Amino acid sequence: MVNQRADIGWQSSKSDSSGVSNSGESSKESSRCSTPVLDADRTDRLRDKMKRRIESGDRWFSLEFFPPRTAPGAVNLISRFDRMGSGGPLFIDVTWHPAGDPGSDKETSSMMIASTAVNYCGLESVLHLTCCNQTKEKITAHLNKAKRLGLKNIMALRGDPIGKDWVEEDGGFNYATDLVKHIRCEFDDYFDICVAGYPTGHPEAESYEDDLRHLKEKVDAGAHFIITQLFFRAETFLKFVKDCRAIGITCPILPGIFPIQGYHSLRQLVKLSKLEVPEEIMQVIEPIKDNDAAIRNYGIQQAVEMCKVLLASGEVPGLHFYTLNREVATMEVLRQLGLWAEDPRRPLPWAVSAHPKRKVEDVRPIFWASRPKSYIYRTQDWDDFPNGRWGNSSSPAFGELTDYYLFYLKSKSPKEALLQMWGEELMNEESVYEVFTNYITSQTNRNGHKVMCLPWNDDPLAPETNLLKDELEKVNRRGVLTINSQPNINGKPSSDPIVGWGPAGGYVFQKAYLEFFTSSENVTALLQVLKKYEPRVNYHIVNVQGRNTTNAHDMQPNAVTWGIFPGREIIQPTVVDPVSFMYWKDEAFALWIEQWAKLYEDESPSRMIIQYIHDNYFLVNLVDNDFPLDSCLWQVIEDMFTES
Amino acid sequence: MVNQRADIGWQSSKSDSSGVSNSGESSKESSRCSTPVLDADRTDRLRDKMKRRIESGDRWFSLEFFPPRTAPGAVNLISRFDRMGSGGPLFIDVTWHPAGDPGSDKETSSMMIASTAVNYCGLESVLHLTCCNQTKEKITAHLNKAKRLGLKNIMALRGDPIGKDWVEEDGGFNYATDLVKHIRCEFDDYFDICVAGYPTGHPEAESYEDDLRHLKEKVDAGAHFIITQLFFRAETFLKFVKDCRAIGITCPILPGIFPIQGYHSLRQLVKLSKLEVPEEIMQVIEPIKDNDAAIRNYGIQQAVEMCKVLLASGEVPGLHFYTLNREVATMEVLRQLGLWAEDPRRPLPWAVSAHPKRKVEDVRPIFWASRPKSYIYRTQDWDDFPNGRWGNSSSPAFGELTDYYLFYLKSKSPKEALLQMWGEELMNEESVYEVFTNYITSQTNRNGHKVMCLPWNDDPLAPETNLLKDELEKVNRRGVLTINSQPNINGKPSSDPIVGWGPAGGYVFQKAYLEFFTSSENVTALLQVLKKYEPRVNYHIVNVQGRNTTNAHDMQPNAVTWGIFPGREIIQPTVVDPVSFMYWKDEAFALWIEQWAKLYEDESPSRMIIQYIHDNYFLVNLVDNDFPLDSCLWQVIEDMFTES
Repeated sequence: MVNQRADIGWQSSKSDSSGVSNSGESSKESSRCSTPVLDADRTDRLRDKMKRRIESGDRWFSLEFFPPRTAPGAVNLISRFDRMGSGGPLFIDVTWHPAGDPGSDKETSSMMIASTAVNYCGLESVLHLTCCNQTKEKITAHLNKAKRLGLKNIMALRGDPIGKDWVEEDGGFNYATDLVKHIRCEFDDYFDICVAGYPTGHPEAESYEDDLRHLKEKVDAGAHFIITQLFFRAETFLKFVKDCRAIGITCPILPGIFPIQGYHSLRQLVKLSKLEVPEEIMQVIEPIKDNDAAIRNYGIQQAVEMCKVLLASGEVPGLHFYTLNREVATMEVLRQLGLWAEDPRRPLPWAVSAHPKRKVEDVRPIFWASRPKSYIYRTQDWDDFPNGRWGNSSSPAFGELTDYYLFYLKSKSPKEALLQMWGEELMNEESVYEVFTNYITSQTNRNGHKVMCLPWNDDPLAPETNLLKDELEKVNRRGVLTINSQPNINGKPSSDPIVGWGPAGGYVFQKAYLEFFTSSENVTALLQVLKKYEPRVNYHIVNVQGRNTTNAHDMQPNAVTWGIFPGREIIQPTVVDPVSFMYWKDEAFALWIEQWAKLYEDESPSRMIIQYIHDNYFLVNLVDNDFPLDSCLWQVIEDMFTES
Repeated sequence: MVNQRADIGWQSSKSDSSGVSNSGESSKESSRCSTPVLDADRTDRLRDKMKRRIESGDRWFSLEFFPPRTAPGAVNLISRFDRMGSGGPLFIDVTWHPAGDPGSDKETSSMMIASTAVNYCGLESVLHLTCCNQTKEKITAHLNKAKRLGLKNIMALRGDPIGKDWVEEDGGFNYATDLVKHIRCEFDDYFDICVAGYPTGHPEAESYEDDLRHLKEKVDAGAHFIITQLFFRAETFLKFVKDCRAIGITCPILPGIFPIQGYHSLRQLVKLSKLEVPEEIMQVIEPIKDNDAAIRNYGIQQAVEMCKVLLASGEVPGLHFYTLNREVATMEVLRQLGLWAEDPRRPLPWAVSAHPKRKVEDVRPIFWASRPKSYIYRTQDWDDFPNGRWGNSSSPAFGELTDYYLFYLKSKSPKEALLQMWGEELMNEESVYEVFTNYITSQTNRNGHKVMCLPWNDDPLAPETNLLKDELEKVNRRGVLTINSQPNINGKPSSDPIVGWGPAGGYVFQKAYLEFFTSSENVTALLQVLKKYEPRVNYHIVNVQGRNTTNAHDMQPNAVTWGIFPGREIIQPTVVDPVSFMYWKDEAFALWIEQWAKLYEDESPSRMIIQYIHDNYFLVNLVDNDFPLDSCLWQVIEDMFTES
C-alpha cells in the first residue's frame, strides 16, 4: 500500500489514512462502552455505536425502566440510573404510559425521567412513544420537546387502544409504522428509531407471518433496530431472527430478556402481554410461588442459561433487559454473563452528560465535583461548552440556583435521616465540626448513626478522598470543614482503578486540592502563612458577601487534573477557575441554610449556629502547584493552627 | 482586608482580587523580559512594559540598527537580530533614511527590516520615521503600512532637511512635534511614540532652554518616551534629565549610549551630529587611532564606566545602544553591566513572533521547528491562531511556498560554502548519508569542511538534539536521514537550561520525536515493525506524491511538548498534526531540489542523485507516546534494519 502512487494529492488520501486509523480503533477493546473513547462515543449516534460493537463482536446490554409513580420514587430511580449506569449499558429506555401524562414536566413523567437520564446521568436513552389515539400535532409536540431536552432516540409504538371499540382512523396513527413515517417525515434523520418485534407474533396480528410483514414495514419506514417482546425460550427468539432475515430485515434485533423476579409479577406480565409461560417453567415455579427468594434465584439462573444460548448463537449483538425498575436480578444475570463492567473506566474524571450539545464539553470547574447534577443544571442554558481550555471558551453565565427542590438535586435522605446524621440539636460550632469529622471517618455519631452525607456531598466519601482520610479527619476536628479535596498524582496509568480515567495507555496527573469552610480567625492566620508558600500555593478565600482574596495570576484558571494519552492533545478536564468559584460560593454558602439550617425551627439555637457559620465563616480553596512533591497543603493548615 | 464587608457582590470585587494578583506579578523577577511572562509580555504595549520595569526597578536595554545596503547585508542583519535578540533587549529600533527608499518593499528598506524583526525574529521594534519635506498623505501611507505589518512603535523625527535652503512650510511637517500630532490625530492611540532628546541641545536650536521647551511640546503632543542623542559624560545626561523634570517632562528618558568602536566612525558621527568629543577622550584615543582593537577596548571600558554611573543615579530605567550594526562592543558592555541575559529563558519552546495578531498563538506543529521563519511566512495570512489546542482552532490554510528566495528564509551560507559542505560532486546515495552524518557529528568531511547546516536546518545542531547525537549518528550512517528530533522529557523544571521554557516553578514534558527521510525498502520493513509498537508509537509516512500512511487516531493532533505551571492551564506548544504535516511534506521534499539539487548542473550525476532521493524516498515521523519510559524509537529503527 505504501508504494502505491496517489496522483490526486493528499486530500484524497484522507479517507485512506483514516481508514488505517479506524481499523485500529475498531479493536475489541476500544469499542467497549466501558472503555471510554473520548470522541466517537460522545458524538456517535446510537446506531453507529451498535454498528461498531457488531463489527468488533463486542456484546452489549441495555436496560428498560418505567416511570415512577411518586416524587420520592423519581429520586430513587435517578440514583438507580447512576448505580446501574456504572455497569456500562449501551443505552437505557423509559416506557410511555398515556394515562400518566407522560410528556409533561412532572418529575414522574416519562419525558422528564428520560431527560434526566440523558442530561444528569449521562446515559444514552431511548424514549418510548405511543401514537394510538393521538393527534399529529400532539405527537410532533412531544418529539419537539424530546429533541429540545437532548433526547435522540425514540421507541416508536402503537400503544394499547383506550377502550374496546377502537377502530382504525383514516390518516391517523393506526400502527407503529405510521409513527415511524411521521418521525422521519417531520424530523428527517434526527432521531434513531427503535420498533418492537414479537417473537411469537403480535397477539392481535392475523398470523405470525402477517406480523413479520408488519415488522418489515416498520423497518422499511425508517426504524434502525428492533427490540423484541419478552420470551421464555432461546429457540423462540432464534427462529424469529431467522424468519426476519429471510424476509429481508437486516437491522439489529435485540432480544428482550425478562428475568423472572416473582410469581405475581410474572402472572401480571404474562396476562398483559398475552404470552404463555412454558410448561417446564410453570412446573418449577408453581411449587415455590410463595418463596420470593427461590423464584428470583430460579429466574436468574433461567435467564443466564437462555442468554448463554443466545450469545453463543452468534445472532445476538446485545441483550435488552426488562428490569421492572429493580436492580438485583438484572445485575446478577449480567455479572454471571460477564457483561457487567466491574471496573468501568471513566472517559473523564467527572460523569459526562449525554446531551448532544454538551458533546465538546471536556473541562469543568472542580467545585461541583460532588454536585455534578447541580453543575449541569446551572449550565444548561450555555450554548457553547469549553472545549479543552476553560479560560478562553467558557461563558460563565451560570443559572440561578433558586430551586433547591428539583428532584434530581434533592438529597436521597429524608429529613428524619438527616437530623439523625447531623444532630437533632446542635450545641455549638464544635457540634458541627463533629458532624464533618464523623462523615470523614464513617464512624457512628454519639446517637449511633453514621453520617453518610453532608449538604455538599450526597454520597459517601469517594475512594480517592479516602486516600486523604487521616489528614482530613485531623483538620475537620479542629474546624477546617472540608467539602472537596483531591490528592496530588504524578503520572499514574490511566487504567488506575482509583484515580485513572481516559483512554488506555495514558498517564493522569493531579495537583493537590483542598476546599473548606473555616472561621475568620483561622483565615487571618492563613493569609499570614500563605505568604511563605508563594508561588507554590494558589488560593481563593471568600465569605458569603463575596470578597475574593486570591493570588490567582490575572484571574486565570488553574488546571488541577490532566491526562496525557497516545496520539492526542493534552486533556485537562478539571480547573480551579476564579470566576466560576464566585458562583459556586453562592451555592456552597446557601447549602448551609437550605439543606441544614432549615431542618430546625426558626430561632432555634441549632438553626442560629448554622446561620452564624453561614454569616461568618470563609470558604477557602488551596492548590499545591508542585504536583511532583508531597502535598504541602497539610503543612499549610498546620502552620495556620500554629499561627492563630 | 479579608474581614471587610463588600455588599456590592463579587463582580465589584474583581478589581480588588486582581489587585492582589497584580501586586504578586510586579515582583522583580516576573517583570524581566528574559523571564517570560506568557501573557502580559505578549499583549502589553511597549509603554506598559516600560512601566512595569520601572515599577519593579528592573533595568533594561535596547538596540539601534540601521538598514543594510545590500541583500546579503539584510540576511546578515536578520541573523544578528536573532543573536542579539537572545540577550533580552526590551526593544530594537531601525533608523529611517529618506534617501534609501525606506518605506518600500525592498529587502533592505527600513520598513522591511523592522517588519522582519517583529514578525520573524519576535523582537519588539520601533520604526523611525522622519517627516521633513514629506506630504501628509505619504506619511499616513507609511504609517498604515507599518500598522499592517505589525509594527506598533514609531520614533517620530524631523529628519535632516534636504538641501540647504529649507524653510518652514505652513501646515507642513516642520518639526517632530507636527509628526507626533499627526500620528495621534490619524491613528489615535495605536502607536507608541518615541521622540529624540538632545542632552546638549539640538545643534539648530536657539538655546538649550529653547530646545527643552521643544522637547516638552513633543511629549505634550503625545510621545510616550524619549531617547537621547549620544553623549560622552554621564553628568551631561543627568543634568539633562533634571532639567527635563524641572519643566514637567515626566515620561521615561533613555540615554543613548555609543560605545566608541573606531577612530573614523567616531569622527564621522561627531561631525554628523555636531557634537564635541571631550578633551579627556581625545587625549586617550588620538595616540592609538590606528589600533582598532585598542580603541574598541577603550570604548567598551569608557561606556561601561559611564553606564555604571548612569544606572547608579537612579534616574535611568534603561540604556539605549547605538550599535552601528555591530555586535561585539555592545554585547561586551552589556555583559560587563550584567544586563545581557546569559540564560534567556524561553516563554515557549519556539521563538514567539511579536506581531500583535499572533499574540494568542501558543501551539505550532513540530515540523517547522528548525524553520520557524518559514512557518511564520506560510501562516502570515491566518486571521486566527490556535489558542491552546490545535485540533479545534487551527485554520491550516498554509500559504504556498513558491518563493524560496525571500531574504529571511535564505540560507546564511553562499553557494560555494554549501558545495564545500554538501559535496562538489556526489557519487551515490551514500554520499548523501555522509553529509547528514557529518552534520550530526560536527566532524569535517573528506574535503576538510565542517557541515554546519542542511537544507532543513540552517543552524548547527540544537543543544537538545545534542542529547541524541550518538544515536542520530548511527542511524544517519545507515540511511535514516534525520531532519528533526527531540528526546522524551518526563517533568524537568521549567528553568532547565536545555529543555526548559515557560514561567518559573513549572515542569516541562516531551514525547520522543524522530523525523527522517528513508528509502522505500526501509519503509516497507518499518511498517512491519510498527505493528509491534501499537499503540505506543504514532507514525506518519508519506512520499512526495502525498500518500499518508498513519495510525493517527481520527487524524487528531498529538501533543509532543507540554508544560505545567503554577496557577495556569496546561500549555502544549508543540503538536504533531496530520493535516499540517502534509503541507510540511511539500516543503521538506522541495528543499531537496531548491536548496541542494539546484547547486549542481542540470543532468549532472550529483543532481540526479538528489532528484532520485526526492522522487523515491519517504518522509517518516515517529512519536513514542510513553514519555515516562526510555524512548523506544531507536529500537524501532534497529528492528527496521533487522527486518529489511
